[in-house]
Amino acid sequence: MKPDFTRLLDPRTEAMATSAIREILKVANRPGMTSLAGGIPAPETFPMDILEHVFSIVLDRWGSSAFQYDLTEGFVPLREAAVPYLRRYSVETPAEGILVSSGSQGLLDAIGKILIGPGDAVAVESPTYLGALQAFNPYGPRYVEIETDEMGAIPESLEKLIKEDKPKFVYLVPTFQNPSGRTLTIERRQTIAEIITRHGVLLVEDDPYAALRYRGDTVPAIKSMAPAHVLYATTFSKVFAPGLRVGLAVPPPGELGTWLVKAKQGTDLHTSTLSQAMAAAYLEGGYLEERLPLICAHYAPRLDAMLEAMEESFPSDWSWSRPEGGMFLWAEGPEGTDIPDLYEKALARNVAFVPGRYFYADPDRGGRTMRLNFTNADLDVLRKAVGTLGELIRNG
Amino acid sequence: MKPDFTRLLDPRTEAMATSAIREILKVANRPGMTSLAGGIPAPETFPMDILEHVFSIVLDRWGSSAFQYDLTEGFVPLREAAVPYLRRYSVETPAEGILVSSGSQGLLDAIGKILIGPGDAVAVESPTYLGALQAFNPYGPRYVEIETDEMGAIPESLEKLIKEDKPKFVYLVPTFQNPSGRTLTIERRQTIAEIITRHGVLLVEDDPYAALRYRGDTVPAIKSMAPAHVLYATTFSKVFAPGLRVGLAVPPPGELGTWLVKAKQGTDLHTSTLSQAMAAAYLEGGYLEERLPLICAHYAPRLDAMLEAMEESFPSDWSWSRPEGGMFLWAEGPEGTDIPDLYEKALARNVAFVPGRYFYADPDRGGRTMRLNFTNADLDVLRKAVGTLGELIRNG
Repeated sequence: MKPDFTRLLDPRTEAMATSAIREILKVANRPGMTSLAGGIPAPETFPMDILEHVFSIVLDRWGSSAFQYDLTEGFVPLREAAVPYLRRYSVETPAEGILVSSGSQGLLDAIGKILIGPGDAVAVESPTYLGALQAFNPYGPRYVEIETDEMGAIPESLEKLIKEDKPKFVYLVPTFQNPSGRTLTIERRQTIAEIITRHGVLLVEDDPYAALRYRGDTVPAIKSMAPAHVLYATTFSKVFAPGLRVGLAVPPPGELGTWLVKAKQGTDLHTSTLSQAMAAAYLEGGYLEERLPLICAHYAPRLDAMLEAMEESFPSDWSWSRPEGGMFLWAEGPEGTDIPDLYEKALARNVAFVPGRYFYADPDRGGRTMRLNFTNADLDVLRKAVGTLGELIRNG
Repeated sequence: MKPDFTRLLDPRTEAMATSAIREILKVANRPGMTSLAGGIPAPETFPMDILEHVFSIVLDRWGSSAFQYDLTEGFVPLREAAVPYLRRYSVETPAEGILVSSGSQGLLDAIGKILIGPGDAVAVESPTYLGALQAFNPYGPRYVEIETDEMGAIPESLEKLIKEDKPKFVYLVPTFQNPSGRTLTIERRQTIAEIITRHGVLLVEDDPYAALRYRGDTVPAIKSMAPAHVLYATTFSKVFAPGLRVGLAVPPPGELGTWLVKAKQGTDLHTSTLSQAMAAAYLEGGYLEERLPLICAHYAPRLDAMLEAMEESFPSDWSWSRPEGGMFLWAEGPEGTDIPDLYEKALARNVAFVPGRYFYADPDRGGRTMRLNFTNADLDVLRKAVGTLGELIRNG
């Protein structure tokens, strides 16, 4: 008789069970499907033509060290090359202040591991990034939700939560947020920086998309306004290649970074040295700065096409975000909108999206919302898919 | 005033605080030091001359997919290429039965995350692999220690623990164990397979070193004797390159593997696709099988040199393991041996090793033991360092 070892599972796995989103992404990847569901970069934006060259730089410069065990903190040449790169995000730090993580996800897990105990309050936007919930969930947090509007998180809501719920930390994706595409205004950033400083609260600023700005002015990271209170995180997943799984973190000065390193050491020893060396050579060689405009030029017309198609085909009682960058936009229907019904009908017409409710810590929220991704389909296909959604919405 | 966010640390971090070993390894890496302390492969064993070719295969075969997000379970071509490779360890599995982890460490973390709750018993060898303790510690286990002798874990001790302590799982490194270098005999493997099957107990068989056999006959994995009760794990760290951070796991049939995947998804989404693709191309091209004898030919004389030098210079009241492979051997002094004193004196003579007590779940054990690594120094340097240790021991 085969043993059933699921009887050994720790109760914390109950918080890891939600795989609805995995099922949705599986369906979205079926052949013939136009997927507005995923969040993956277009492979056309990867610098395939120069990777062989980048690899040869790695071999020349670092030789066997690029294939050897390395520091948990991260590959030193990458941390050094990241110093000027992070200034793009208005983040000032010495190389020693930078930690490398196995994608942003690796950092979110380490944060959960060192900070979250069962029942601890964690403040997140409503809606928020699903991957953060998945990273934090096993550690048993109680989420408290910051209200948001088209300008991002509402500072008054945040301050109220801080006073009432005393969260262990606040988690925000302030720029081109996943899922909403919204960007926190500079005024709100300043207010939030002031609030967290005044209350002595730790903010995790997750910033994967800031470099993907297609128009409008750069908004500085909250980290630049409250460096001692912000743990800043970004990743090479959207600006180089996600398969490398390389993220960067700049913790506040003090011992928090040391604890993140200890947590990471137990979790994966260190991030792939080869991946880090590739990113280091790519940064050092100036390739990232050279390619970034091309990536933006690839995505900008896709965002425009999606916005135009929505303008044309979505009914006037729907509203949606109009981001200036990133990978997503967010649409909300009027009272009575039946997203599960729309989802099924769209699938039958070979169009996939993600129902918005999966991005809420509270599963009863977001019932009339959806997330649409525009980075991974051709212009005509995007227009047609949005047209199909509009048609299905209008025809009920 | 700068905030001190260490006040936010969850109590689980108390179990993550022990960094003595990190300090030892830092000291061991000082210039001029002969380090018998580390556990890192010799960079001369990395196939530097063909890596450019392997990388070009990756680009040709998989193109942008090798740089894109990928399945949490692992890169399919790697899992397929691993099927015949795992037969070398007498592990039979279809590709779907293989999970890729971010090094063995990533798997050990995932095991801890899904199985260990505060106070749960986990059975480990005495001594055991330190990295496993570091992976498990944050989840709050209570370790119960299996007695060992020169033939590895003692089955009677294991069965007694299973009856008395009902461990969540048993963790063993049966072949060329880190730290002891010992290999569990085939008879004991069969007995342990029988015990875990009879009691319905899960065994985690961590097997990073089996391919590094310099003499004697291959011993089959316990996985081959009790496939439904063993979660088998190995890694490319010792046979290709540790910096890739690629491990392989073969869980028992059933849902346990699905839970490991869920845990991993929250921890790092997936292992570096580039690292996995490099490993896949390396396996597929037959390079690993071609190079393995060269790696063994590099290490075998180092093991011999260390054993000979110990024979010559260590006093007769010391005992040590005589492994047929792997990276370590283990020495134990007589009653009254003062390892901390020897450690300090050796450092003063520029020789580093790891005091054995760090490899015990119970910190009061192992006070007369030491771990010696022989893979990362030249023959003459090894002989001289062992001679110095012997001299210091003899002269008290």
